[in-house]
Amino acid sequence: MIKKVDLNSDLGESFGRYHLGDDPAILTIVSSANIACGFHAGDPVTMANTVRLAEQLGVEIGAHPGLPDRVGFGRRVMMLSPEEAKADLKYQLGALMAFTKNNKVHHIKPHGALYNQAATDLTLAVALCEGVKEVDSEIIIYGLANSALIEAAKLLSLSYAQEVFADRHYNRDGSLVPRREAGALINDEQVIIDRVITMVKERRVQAIDGSWLALHPDTICLHGDHPKAIKLASRLAGALTNAGITIAPIRN
Amino acid sequence: MIKKVDLNSDLGESFGRYHLGDDPAILTIVSSANIACGFHAGDPVTMANTVRLAEQLGVEIGAHPGLPDRVGFGRRVMMLSPEEAKADLKYQLGALMAFTKNNKVHHIKPHGALYNQAATDLTLAVALCEGVKEVDSEIIIYGLANSALIEAAKLLSLSYAQEVFADRHYNRDGSLVPRREAGALINDEQVIIDRVITMVKERRVQAIDGSWLALHPDTICLHGDHPKAIKLASRLAGALTNAGITIAPIRN
Amino acid sequence: MIKKVDLNSDLGESFGRYHLGDDPAILTIVSSANIACGFHAGDPVTMANTVRLAEQLGVEIGAHPGLPDRVGFGRRVMMLSPEEAKADLKYQLGALMAFTKNNKVHHIKPHGALYNQAATDLTLAVALCEGVKEVDSEIIIYGLANSALIEAAKLLSLSYAQEVFADRHYNRDGSLVPRREAGALINDEQVIIDRVITMVKERRVQAIDGSWLALHPDTICLHGDHPKAIKLASRLAGALTNAGITIAPIRN
Amino acid sequence: MIKKVDLNSDLGESFGRYHLGDDPAILTIVSSANIACGFHAGDPVTMANTVRLAEQLGVEIGAHPGLPDRVGFGRRVMMLSPEEAKADLKYQLGALMAFTKNNKVHHIKPHGALYNQAATDLTLAVALCEGVKEVDSEIIIYGLANSALIEAAKLLSLSYAQEVFADRHYNRDGSLVPRREAGALINDEQVIIDRVITMVKERRVQAIDGSWLALHPDTICLHGDHPKAIKLASRLAGALTNAGITIAPIRN
Repeated sequence: MIKKVDLNSDLGESFGRYHLGDDPAILTIVSSANIACGFHAGDPVTMANTVRLAEQLGVEIGAHPGLPDRVGFGRRVMMLSPEEAKADLKYQLGALMAFTKNNKVHHIKPHGALYNQAATDLTLAVALCEGVKEVDSEIIIYGLANSALIEAAKLLSLSYAQEVFADRHYNRDGSLVPRREAGALINDEQVIIDRVITMVKERRVQAIDGSWLALHPDTICLHGDHPKAIKLASRLAGALTNAGITIAPIRN
Repeated sequence: MIKKVDLNSDLGESFGRYHLGDDPAILTIVSSANIACGFHAGDPVTMANTVRLAEQLGVEIGAHPGLPDRVGFGRRVMMLSPEEAKADLKYQLGALMAFTKNNKVHHIKPHGALYNQAATDLTLAVALCEGVKEVDSEIIIYGLANSALIEAAKLLSLSYAQEVFADRHYNRDGSLVPRREAGALINDEQVIIDRVITMVKERRVQAIDGSWLALHPDTICLHGDHPKAIKLASRLAGALTNAGITIAPIRN
Repeated sequence: MIKKVDLNSDLGESFGRYHLGDDPAILTIVSSANIACGFHAGDPVTMANTVRLAEQLGVEIGAHPGLPDRVGFGRRVMMLSPEEAKADLKYQLGALMAFTKNNKVHHIKPHGALYNQAATDLTLAVALCEGVKEVDSEIIIYGLANSALIEAAKLLSLSYAQEVFADRHYNRDGSLVPRREAGALINDEQVIIDRVITMVKERRVQAIDGSWLALHPDTICLHGDHPKAIKLASRLAGALTNAGITIAPIRN
Repeated sequence: MIKKVDLNSDLGESFGRYHLGDDPAILTIVSSANIACGFHAGDPVTMANTVRLAEQLGVEIGAHPGLPDRVGFGRRVMMLSPEEAKADLKYQLGALMAFTKNNKVHHIKPHGALYNQAATDLTLAVALCEGVKEVDSEIIIYGLANSALIEAAKLLSLSYAQEVFADRHYNRDGSLVPRREAGALINDEQVIIDRVITMVKERRVQAIDGSWLALHPDTICLHGDHPKAIKLASRLAGALTNAGITIAPIRN
C-alpha cells in the first residue's frame, strides 16, 4: 500500500516593515502553504508576493485566516458570534483568492486561537465551513485531526485534511497537551521524526499517558519561522521519503 | 434614439456599532451599488448584509475600495506606491467577491481620495486597472468622466463607465470645482435635475465660467447618507424617467 | 442625613466620520463623563472635543478604556494577559490625560467586555488597578457594585465608586441578569426612577427573585445614545433632586 | 570651550509578535531614546518594556509619534489637517507619558513622513508644537536642523534640539539629499565619523556641492536596527569621546 502525506506550513506572516519567517526556504520543502490574510498577520503586498512565490514553486495555496487581532497575532481567544466568524472568514478567503491565478484557493486552515476554538466548538466550526462552502465548495478544510472542524466539514460534505503535529504531545482524548504544561513539546528531532513516520504508517500515536490513539494524518504542520525549524522540516521531509512515504498535496 | 443612464450610490459604509446611510431606501432607486470593502468603511458583516440586500433588489454590485485610513474615511490623501495601491485594491475586491453569488462583481469605483488621485495620476490609475484586470477582466471601471482612470481603462482594454456628478460644478478643463471653493456645490434641486437631464440628453454640461464641456455621462453618483439626499435621488430618478431616459445598469 | 449620588455616562464614542450619541445633551445632566480612549471607540480629535466640552460644562472627566476591538465596539470577550490588559489601560489613560487641563483625570471606568471581565476576574482587576495606580494614585476606580474590580481597588488602596444600573435587574448574588435573559431590562420609566431612589436612600435593591440585596450606589450609569435615553436621564435627575438627593461627582 | 552633543535613536519599534531593532544594545550607546507610540510602530506592552529599559540605563525618554499608518510604518505621506495632526500627537505623547516615572517625557521627535512634513510645512509644525505645549511646555522639540519644526519651536518659546544626520549628504540649502538620489548616503565609516566631529566642533558641514553650511548640531540620530548600525554607533561614540566631545542629553 502506497503511503503519502502532505506537509503544510504557515506563511506570508510578515507585515509591512516587519519580516517574519523564511518563506522561500520552507516553500522548497512543503507541499501546501497556508497564507496569512491580513487579519492576524500579512498585508496585501505580502500576500501578493507570497502567492507568487508559492505558485512559482508549485506549492498548493491555502488561506490562513485569523482573528481580527494583529497585536495579539490572532493567538488571543476572542468570542465572535458565528455570523461574525463566518463573515470574517469569507472576507479573508476572498482577499487571498484575488491574488491567485484563476481566483482559486486549494485549502483553508484557520490560525491560532480560531483554529483551537474551531477544534472544540462545533457551532463555530459549522459557521466557518458554511462560509467556505458559500465561496467555493471545492476548497479543502484543514483541521486538527478528530476535531469539531473535521466533523463540521463532514456534515457539510466538504473535503477535509486531518492535521497532526510533529512536535506536540497528545492527551488520551486526542486533544493537544497545552503548550503551558510540562512535556507538551517534543524537542528531540529523532523522536519527532520516528513519531511522524509511525503516525503516517500506522495511523496511530502514543498519547502522553502511554495509551495509543487512532489518527488519520493527512497533513503535517511544519514551522518556518527560525533556522532550526527549517532544518528539522528538511530532515523530516528526507526521512519520510526514505521511509517510502510520498510527500504530496491533498487532492479532492 | 433611446437614452439611458446608470444611477450609482456608495453603500455599505456602516462599521460595527456605527450606522451610516439608509441603504435599503437608496437601493430602491439606483441601478448599481458601490459597496465599501473594509478599508475606509464597512466590515465583513456589513458587506455580507449589503450584498444580500442589493442582490435581493436586483441592483448591480460593485466594489468601492478605499485607502487604508478608517479614521479619515479614506478622504485624506495618502501616497501609496503603485504596487501598494494595486495590492490594496485586489485585496478589497476579492474580499467583496467572496460575499456575492458566483464570486462576481459587476464594477469597481475607487473611494474618496483614491478616486481623486486616480483621476489625475495615470501611473496610479494604470496600477489600479491592472489589479482589476488580474482579478477579473470583465469588471467595469467607474471613474470621473474624462479622467486618467478612464484613460487607464482604455489603455488596458477594460470596460468603463464615465461618472458625472449631479450637484457639483465643473471647471472649464473638466475637473470638479473643489468643495472648499465658493459655488462648488449646487443646492437648488430643480437646477440639479435640469442639469442632469441636459447632461444625459445633450452630452454636455455648462462649466462654472459659462463655457460648455463635452461629457459622456454613463453613470450618475447619488448620495444616500441623509433623508434629503434620498428624496432628491428619488425625485431625480422620476424626472429622468419622465424625460424618456431609462435607468439601467452598465452592460459590457 | 444628606444623600448624594453621582450620575455618569459613556461619551466620546464617535469615530472619524461616524457620529454616536448626543454628548452635549447628556453632559448637561450628568456629573461625570467616561470618555472613550480610541481602542473600542473614539479617536484623538473626538477626544479633544469631548474633553473640551466636558470641561466647559464642569463635568468630571474620566477615562473609558476598552478592549482593542473597534469593529466589535469592545463588547466581545478577548482574553488578554494581565500584562497586556494593564499596558492597554495605561496607554489609553495617558492618551486621555494629554487632552485635559493639567493632565489630570478624575476617574476611570472600563468599557464593555473589559468591564464585565474585571467584575469577576480578580487577577485582571488587580492588573488594571495597578496600572491606574502607577499612572496616578488619585484616580477613582468606577466598577460594578460588589464586584472584583471594587475589591481590587480596596486591595490597592485606591478610591472607588460603586456603580449601579437603573434599568437592569440583579440576580440574588449581586450580578446583573444577562441582557439575553427575559426580564433583564426594566422598561417602565417610573419603575426605574422609584427603584433608583430606593437604591440611593435605602442602599438596597430588590433582586429578580424578590430577595433584597445590599448595595452602596455611589454612581449611576445613564445612557445618551438615543433621544429616549436622554429624556429618561433628565427625568431621573429631576426626580432625584426632588427626593432631596444631591447629584454631585465623587470626591476622594 | 567644552563641546557636547546628544546621541539619539528611534526605539520601541517592535509590534506584537514582530521584533525590530536591538534596543538593549543601542541603549548602552545613546543619551536619548525616541520611543514609538503605537501609531506607526510599537504597542502598549512594547512601550512599557522599552521605557523600563531606558529608565534603568539612565537614557532620556522621548516620544516618537508617527502617522496613523502601521502597514506603511509611518513613512507614507498622509495629508492630515493641523487639527488632526495635533490631536494625534497629543494622544501618542500622553500614551507614552503614562509609562514613565512621574508621567514626564524629556523630548519629542516626529517619525518618518511626519518628521519630513514638519521640516517644511510651518503650519503643520506649529500645530505639532502647540500640541506639545498644551501637554507639557518643558518637553524639548527634536527637529531637523534649520527646519520649519525648529522655527515653530522658537515661535512658541519651546526648547528645541537641532538634529543632524551622520550618514546623509546635505544640499546647499540645508535640506537632506533625498535617499533615492545618487550619493545621498555616506557609507564609509571613517568619513562619517570625521564628518560628525567636524559638525560638532566647527558647527558646519560640507554640502554635496562642496559649499559649507552652517549647522548647530545638538543631537545626532543613530540607528539600531541592524548589527552593522550598532557597531558604527559604538565606534562613533568612542571617536566623539576621544575628540573631547561629551555625549550628554539636552538640558532645558
